[in-house]
Amino acid sequence: MSQQDPPVTLPAPSGVITLLTDFGLSDPFVGVMKGVILSRFPNARVVDLCHGVRPQAIAEGAFWLERCHGWFPQGTVHVAVVDPGVGSARRVLAASISGHYFLLPDNGLLAGALTERHGARVLEVDLPKLGIVPASATFHGRDVFAPIASGLASGERHFEALGVPTRPLPSLLPLPQRTPHGAAGEVLCADHFGNLITNLGEALALETGAREVRIAGQSIPWLRTYADAPPGALLALINAFGVLEIAARDGSAESRLKVARGAAVELRGAGAAASSGVGG
Amino acid sequence: MSQQDPPVTLPAPSGVITLLTDFGLSDPFVGVMKGVILSRFPNARVVDLCHGVRPQAIAEGAFWLERCHGWFPQGTVHVAVVDPGVGSARRVLAASISGHYFLLPDNGLLAGALTERHGARVLEVDLPKLGIVPASATFHGRDVFAPIASGLASGERHFEALGVPTRPLPSLLPLPQRTPHGAAGEVLCADHFGNLITNLGEALALETGAREVRIAGQSIPWLRTYADAPPGALLALINAFGVLEIAARDGSAESRLKVARGAAVELRGAGAAASSGVGG
Amino acid sequence: MSQQDPPVTLPAPSGVITLLTDFGLSDPFVGVMKGVILSRFPNARVVDLCHGVRPQAIAEGAFWLERCHGWFPQGTVHVAVVDPGVGSARRVLAASISGHYFLLPDNGLLAGALTERHGARVLEVDLPKLGIVPASATFHGRDVFAPIASGLASGERHFEALGVPTRPLPSLLPLPQRTPHGAAGEVLCADHFGNLITNLGEALALETGAREVRIAGQSIPWLRTYADAPPGALLALINAFGVLEIAARDGSAESRLKVARGAAVELRGAGAAASSGVGG
Repeated sequence: MSQQDPPVTLPAPSGVITLLTDFGLSDPFVGVMKGVILSRFPNARVVDLCHGVRPQAIAEGAFWLERCHGWFPQGTVHVAVVDPGVGSARRVLAASISGHYFLLPDNGLLAGALTERHGARVLEVDLPKLGIVPASATFHGRDVFAPIASGLASGERHFEALGVPTRPLPSLLPLPQRTPHGAAGEVLCADHFGNLITNLGEALALETGAREVRIAGQSIPWLRTYADAPPGALLALINAFGVLEIAARDGSAESRLKVARGAAVELRGAGAAASSGVGG
Repeated sequence: MSQQDPPVTLPAPSGVITLLTDFGLSDPFVGVMKGVILSRFPNARVVDLCHGVRPQAIAEGAFWLERCHGWFPQGTVHVAVVDPGVGSARRVLAASISGHYFLLPDNGLLAGALTERHGARVLEVDLPKLGIVPASATFHGRDVFAPIASGLASGERHFEALGVPTRPLPSLLPLPQRTPHGAAGEVLCADHFGNLITNLGEALALETGAREVRIAGQSIPWLRTYADAPPGALLALINAFGVLEIAARDGSAESRLKVARGAAVELRGAGAAASSGVGG
Repeated sequence: MSQQDPPVTLPAPSGVITLLTDFGLSDPFVGVMKGVILSRFPNARVVDLCHGVRPQAIAEGAFWLERCHGWFPQGTVHVAVVDPGVGSARRVLAASISGHYFLLPDNGLLAGALTERHGARVLEVDLPKLGIVPASATFHGRDVFAPIASGLASGERHFEALGVPTRPLPSLLPLPQRTPHGAAGEVLCADHFGNLITNLGEALALETGAREVRIAGQSIPWLRTYADAPPGALLALINAFGVLEIAARDGSAESRLKVARGAAVELRGAGAAASSGVGG
């Protein structure tokens, strides 16, 4: 550790490794990563955080990684592989942030909100020094990330020994914007229920004073939970991950609104325009 | 325990927690529940029982929970979250039945066949007493069920300390009916293979003396296993979960018959009508 | 062990059990198998290798089992259930090959490349001798394979005690062919990304001297990794499992080429025909 670094204590490994990828679960890719991990660290407890990130959707992976890691034990190693540049010269990063470890490609998958946290440290992993020579040019989840994760989670390798400090590429997670009358954001993804998840965080959303949300030409009331809307009705709420979500009670907002990832979402404060919002 | 309660011994926790939800696996919801569990009970062994229950399909969840829990070790904690009323006033239940523990919302998800078993005990969970203040109004799998399950499975909390005895709401699992000539039931769901799973249990089905099954205007022979039918042919059988199932050998009965959940299924005894059934 | 057998040492069980099936993950079938395993062997570490094999696609299961098992610890028990003949007279096999154990139906699911390895041993499992009486005719993953796997992985049962030596049925995994000008193979399956995975192994492919691949009437350059192709372009590469794969950079080759499982794939050597291949 250099003299300039803040004296942040690195957490002891918890033995838990999470996996977030765009691999899906229909093929054995995730299973094989677990085989490599168990071969090197038999007591690893591996948790599938999410493998349903859309192929190559770096922003989606960045969002879930930022919003979910904190629910795991301190000292967990979070492996994230949404990696269209696999086998190219893109770098591999290791990070230590708020008591958690992260391993991921340097392609914008690390959210800015994470790297800006107090004491956040990001290293460029030195693969040759670690003796890692990938067996393939196309599956670094197995050949690069799984071995590093095993070493870090088992305590065999210290975080500091993984490489040298670096600055990651800018995050690809789009940020919401303040507007004269409120805030503007976009749909990041739709979940299994067809709920539309946006990048409008709770604090910003509350600041606008808005009581309804505009998307796809419609005004949708901002309520507390699904059951507060009549069956079938559209509603907006702050979801369990701290961002604005558009839902349809007992139905799919995605099907109802027919909007895609990237669709604009707008919040206007009460004083900004006529508002017929229902709740808050 | 009150004087009126039967002296049923509560099983020691096995350390196994199963999860049954309608969350799907494309998002990190299930992964985050596991993060909470491992944060509180690091040695938990968490098994995904099923996350493919259709959204809000309480009857489907009730069926699988009733039919599957018994294959797990005694003292397992089964968490079931099909919960369209999340965040509303719906209650949270804990049950101890036949050596297994259950945690679930009080919305008809607990099958009547379970609550009627000898010694079954159902409690309304007292969340404030347990110190559980949900961080969200929309994800009680993470904020309510995972913490309770961790405490119960780790042995930190005793079942009796979770709340007070109560009667659950009636189950939403539809029951089959006896008819003058046999029995009538319905399709509960289609599985991954397109097999149509009904609510007609083995004992009732055998009592009818039927040798074929009527569904969607067709008579289908009742055989022992898939391989007893010619390739591509429709057949009925008693499946591995003890209920009548309609299948197509090496194919999908769902695609062939184009029936939906709730479709009527009828068994007629041999004496009741002309029967050309093949086997038994 | 008979006098004729080679003195191959059987590996100590690792305690890891992998599951490969065509069950999908939408139903509780895999979860229930884990319940049976944990009931009999509480310390089992069970890994889902793959449950997305297409229904009844024995060749696909055979391919992944052969190509993936080696990434797990020595002494792992690999359970494979793609079993359209369940409940019929088809036999159950146990195999010990290259330090790994396999349990699977005798229906062509065991790749020839595995049974031909030095010291490979294949037994017909004697179910009555093991005291296994299946509770169902349709779910031997739960009733037959899970109990045997538990006994073998826990060390309670020795491999040799499972049955008697036998020859398995021929593998259903199609083999590629040498041609006068190179080699001909076929598409085995498409993965989650729409990459088309073929049965043309690396050694054979390299021998042809080909620099491009013919499929669906198109010539596709053979490159090293996805990032070596322009965005959207088709490419071929040797994938991480040692076979030729046709991909579309940041896209789906399956959607682009609209080919199905079994589609012909051809490699022609440089001397055999005009070649405009780009890389190698």
